[in-house]
Amino acid sequence: MRQNVLLTARNLGDDNIERLSRLANVYASWKMDERSLEEILPEIDVLVVFLWPRFLTPEKLVKMKRLRFLQSVLVGVNHVPFAGLRDDVIVASNAGAYSLEVAEHAWALLLTAAKRVVEQHQRIRGGSKSLTDFAGEAAGMVVLKGKTLGIVGYGGIGREIARFGKAFGMNIVAYGRRSARQRGVTILSGKSGLDSLLKQSDVVILSLPLTNSTNRMMGERELSLLKDNAVLVNIARGDLIDQNALYSHLKSRPNLRYATDVWWYREGQETLETDLPLAALSNFVGTPHMSGPTGTLSGRPGKSAADNVLRYLKKRAPRHVIDRREYVEAG
Amino acid sequence: MRQNVLLTARNLGDDNIERLSRLANVYASWKMDERSLEEILPEIDVLVVFLWPRFLTPEKLVKMKRLRFLQSVLVGVNHVPFAGLRDDVIVASNAGAYSLEVAEHAWALLLTAAKRVVEQHQRIRGGSKSLTDFAGEAAGMVVLKGKTLGIVGYGGIGREIARFGKAFGMNIVAYGRRSARQRGVTILSGKSGLDSLLKQSDVVILSLPLTNSTNRMMGERELSLLKDNAVLVNIARGDLIDQNALYSHLKSRPNLRYATDVWWYREGQETLETDLPLAALSNFVGTPHMSGPTGTLSGRPGKSAADNVLRYLKKRAPRHVIDRREYVEAG
Repeated sequence: MRQNVLLTARNLGDDNIERLSRLANVYASWKMDERSLEEILPEIDVLVVFLWPRFLTPEKLVKMKRLRFLQSVLVGVNHVPFAGLRDDVIVASNAGAYSLEVAEHAWALLLTAAKRVVEQHQRIRGGSKSLTDFAGEAAGMVVLKGKTLGIVGYGGIGREIARFGKAFGMNIVAYGRRSARQRGVTILSGKSGLDSLLKQSDVVILSLPLTNSTNRMMGERELSLLKDNAVLVNIARGDLIDQNALYSHLKSRPNLRYATDVWWYREGQETLETDLPLAALSNFVGTPHMSGPTGTLSGRPGKSAADNVLRYLKKRAPRHVIDRREYVEAG
Repeated sequence: MRQNVLLTARNLGDDNIERLSRLANVYASWKMDERSLEEILPEIDVLVVFLWPRFLTPEKLVKMKRLRFLQSVLVGVNHVPFAGLRDDVIVASNAGAYSLEVAEHAWALLLTAAKRVVEQHQRIRGGSKSLTDFAGEAAGMVVLKGKTLGIVGYGGIGREIARFGKAFGMNIVAYGRRSARQRGVTILSGKSGLDSLLKQSDVVILSLPLTNSTNRMMGERELSLLKDNAVLVNIARGDLIDQNALYSHLKSRPNLRYATDVWWYREGQETLETDLPLAALSNFVGTPHMSGPTGTLSGRPGKSAADNVLRYLKKRAPRHVIDRREYVEAG
């Protein structure tokens, strides 16, 4: 019997939808009216989401009694309302699909901050004329070669970033699930491993999923472990960092720099609006979460999400199944 | 008989001055009054300069009849007044001394421009709030992987840049003195080689010395060979490019981007003042020639300049001797 697949992500790509249609009945939420959509929900076996679809309220989700497999087109699944999801639903991330674009973006933010490009450019645009004034500030430029790069979260993105770090002649430490030594990278684990990474690194890149245990993992204590002239790059999720602690830290340490592509959530939605005026600080650099959309354009996320759904439909073990316990609030 | 060495570059480093003093009489221009400086000039055998010293006017230079070796602490020697220099003076560049810092800076400018970091950051700082507006512009982001990198000038800096390009999965072509194929890099030469590089490259980095033949080598014709969404990075000298042609080109091609660390000369001096308001364009990114001062801080330029002077004093062939004909205006 053919299974029923509901797509709520427009950006899957026609060729991928076509591939799925050969094995299953495929429904596209954006082509259906509210009523037919509601009627079909109890019949859906597989759900494909990009960002969580607004129409799938807790009341409607509870009606999806046959749902067994949920595929995210995004890598991060922190937007999924796990509490309202039946226990027997397997949730798969799209790990690796955006690694290349995200790693390139991470390296762009790192170099922009290390070389103070935004700050200098703005002063030139503002009318600064003296080359010698700037030359006197060369000590504030971070040369990457010979420095230590700390990669917090050593998955697909982290490994791609490590390759860049090696080409730039950096020593690399990573924070991962298990301590190990892999192709020249020292992987540290546990709280003491993270502390050690933060203390010894000249530049730190956050590239790990937002879960219960990583939510606001970078608080006042962790930020204080960083070197005063460190560069901190966030390519993962804004909520990994405590915004208040970050703001005070950047205010009091003008040589420390924070460069980010990701922003904090408000009512479940990422937004450029911040509680504190971070973008006004000269040691803050921000881009508007461009690494994801850039990756989407490659077509790779749509293809790998569809590949994974096909694996499930063919009764093969799907890849990148996440541990739901990491996303549900304890208690 | 001990030779007389005149240092006019303060940033050589005390240890290097000490090493030279063991083999020669070393004079430091900044420790001498005008009169004793003038008296010593006819006795000087070796001159070490950073930027050309103001006190060495053509009238004074002509008095340096014993001068036989001129060592530049900078890589570029285009600041040397060759026309007023006796024919028997050997001039040595400091090639390679800044390669690492300059290559890192080149890559920072390239990624900043490719990912539109400055532009996006400024819009966020200016109050833009909508992540979805930005996401719609993802097509304007340049992903480096699989693209073609054109390196114009394949010396120490160019080779360092090629290493980064390989780590980012790029195809690499270079413009050099002789056509060749070296470790995966296709080196093209001659006018047609340059044209071919400009046409096929997605990103182009200028990293060659400013000489008679490279002065304004990038004019209207050459710029028009670039792809309309190319990224052009200048890490060498502003005057490699015709400023008027560049300005019109950037105005008419908003998807083409120019990122530079170097600026045009006015009366022999590099200055942030431009004839046209380049810094006001959203597809222009500029830093205030920071790659050199950053390199100077490493101590490497002072050491390698002193090493080369020592080679000369010990009657060994000095390195990086430049061809003076490339710097003297014909006719």
